[in-house]
Amino acid sequence: MAAELRDRIEDALVAFLEPARAEIEAIGAELEPLAEAAADTVLGGGKRLRPAFCYWGARAAGRADDDALVRAAASLELLHACALVHDDVIDRSATRRGSSSAHERFAQLHSEHHWRGDPAEFGRATAILLGDLLLVWSDAMFAASGLDPTALARARPVAERMRTELMAGQYLDIVEQARGGGSVERALRVARYKAATYTVEGPLHLGAAIGDAQPDTIEALSAYGVPLGEAFQLRDDLLGAFGDPDVTGKPAGDDLREGKRTVLIALTLEAASPTGRALLERDLGNPNLDDDGVSALLDVVSATGAVKTIEHLITTRLAAAIDALATADIDSEARVALVQLASAATRRDG
Amino acid sequence: MAAELRDRIEDALVAFLEPARAEIEAIGAELEPLAEAAADTVLGGGKRLRPAFCYWGARAAGRADDDALVRAAASLELLHACALVHDDVIDRSATRRGSSSAHERFAQLHSEHHWRGDPAEFGRATAILLGDLLLVWSDAMFAASGLDPTALARARPVAERMRTELMAGQYLDIVEQARGGGSVERALRVARYKAATYTVEGPLHLGAAIGDAQPDTIEALSAYGVPLGEAFQLRDDLLGAFGDPDVTGKPAGDDLREGKRTVLIALTLEAASPTGRALLERDLGNPNLDDDGVSALLDVVSATGAVKTIEHLITTRLAAAIDALATADIDSEARVALVQLASAATRRDG
Repeated sequence: MAAELRDRIEDALVAFLEPARAEIEAIGAELEPLAEAAADTVLGGGKRLRPAFCYWGARAAGRADDDALVRAAASLELLHACALVHDDVIDRSATRRGSSSAHERFAQLHSEHHWRGDPAEFGRATAILLGDLLLVWSDAMFAASGLDPTALARARPVAERMRTELMAGQYLDIVEQARGGGSVERALRVARYKAATYTVEGPLHLGAAIGDAQPDTIEALSAYGVPLGEAFQLRDDLLGAFGDPDVTGKPAGDDLREGKRTVLIALTLEAASPTGRALLERDLGNPNLDDDGVSALLDVVSATGAVKTIEHLITTRLAAAIDALATADIDSEARVALVQLASAATRRDG
Repeated sequence: MAAELRDRIEDALVAFLEPARAEIEAIGAELEPLAEAAADTVLGGGKRLRPAFCYWGARAAGRADDDALVRAAASLELLHACALVHDDVIDRSATRRGSSSAHERFAQLHSEHHWRGDPAEFGRATAILLGDLLLVWSDAMFAASGLDPTALARARPVAERMRTELMAGQYLDIVEQARGGGSVERALRVARYKAATYTVEGPLHLGAAIGDAQPDTIEALSAYGVPLGEAFQLRDDLLGAFGDPDVTGKPAGDDLREGKRTVLIALTLEAASPTGRALLERDLGNPNLDDDGVSALLDVVSATGAVKTIEHLITTRLAAAIDALATADIDSEARVALVQLASAATRRDG
């Protein structure tokens, strides 16, 4: 069932991207790399969690399955792709899902053609536009999903709040990094707005709006989605620090080199020895930190027991999410699917 | 009439931005600068041409005046604000409409607070997110304009094509700059997609879709909008090279320092003496070119007669636009307003 839904999401994305690509390629051959990068960014992998949460949010509310729902849900992947492309520009990340990030790819195009100016600057400029295009397309795909007008009208404000909160959360994240952050509480708030809202609860509520959910269903989805979103983000923090090229396609230490103020880092700073703390304060956010430097920081993190604490936080949140489903008055097929999704969203091996 | 419409557009923007700001400020006090920058960027001036073209496109099709139409039209200013913010990041422009550009402003915020990391990098990162937020809000304002669902459904694909063409045109512009450009024909194509489409013809067609225009009205609006859009862009090229702080809030030479491959530059390269051409090839796109260097380039441009050629191109296109209106079967109040708008969009003093 889960695999089948994923295939349908994939098919919906391919079916949307084909004419969308053709539309911009018709303007001129120079636009082919932009069209190709858009398609590759969206189709280059990922767990398709956001569409799945949206789909099952609607099903939980009693909506029947149909292709319009799958298309509307799949459009979240275009929003996500926008966020990834702009995030990689902001963080200057060279890799994404094991391949070159979009700005890196455009920088390479610039170098290959021996064009004028700085390849890196060209890469960043064009990646900003690629992200904008993906954001425009996410809306276009949602609007053209085939959902009936009343469902669209119910869902639209929810979609907009989610997008606004996504951008606000990204901003909070950057400010927190710049301020040097610190408290676990503040790091958790950033986590909640940054990814949790638009990864779990936002998509669930979007689906609920499509499915015309009753207030008690929406409450039940929040009771499941809020702790699960935090658990997801905490798992993401661990992967971002310790790395797992198979899952994230990112090398170990990426978050450390970027100086991300995650809950993991906040917990470490609270519990570290003076020496460990000094090392962290010095090296966190150093983009040129070598692998030995990363290892030294990870040793500090591990020595504090912060990893165990995070694993514990993940487990209790996952349990709370699943508990919330047990008593919820929702469609039973959706209940089973949401339990599976909770596990898929938080497990170590991706 | 024109002044009154402009006031109504301004009021609609203020009315949208107030709750939108409150929504993100409620997340946390750290978000105030983001909310403030969004509002200032939108309300910081501008001729509001795009909303006016959209409004009169609908009126030309026979739609009655109402506030929903004004709100839908005004939402184009949020899209435009997104384009300006991202454009300034891409071009590394420090000023916009006589004030600091958004990324410059965030860089100053970073410096004032003595935050960690590079102020310029923080400025660019947050300006990318600000642009994204404005893009999300442009759609939110359009959807919540109060237009009836059938008008919204007619207008949405037109709005999406316009946005896609805007991003595609910006990409073309950057690629042209990187390739070193050259031909007048190619520069005109960039001009057409980059600004003309989303400045004149796109907004007119959006209005026409809202007003449920007949095919002959849409054709008439194109016959007016296409040459007018080119004329607008050609005027913009002149202002971008020779500057006019009163109109654009940008210093002279900005486009030259950025290496923009405008029609003005293409014409100059075609007609310049070998010395002039060599000077242009050397200094165009040098971000550190001083005022004397800019003057020398402008002398080369003027010596070729390119300015006169551009003024001639503007005049003939403006005439073609106004001619197209004369015979068009459109609402007569709209006809008068569109003639006035054509003149406002292309005159030297802004």
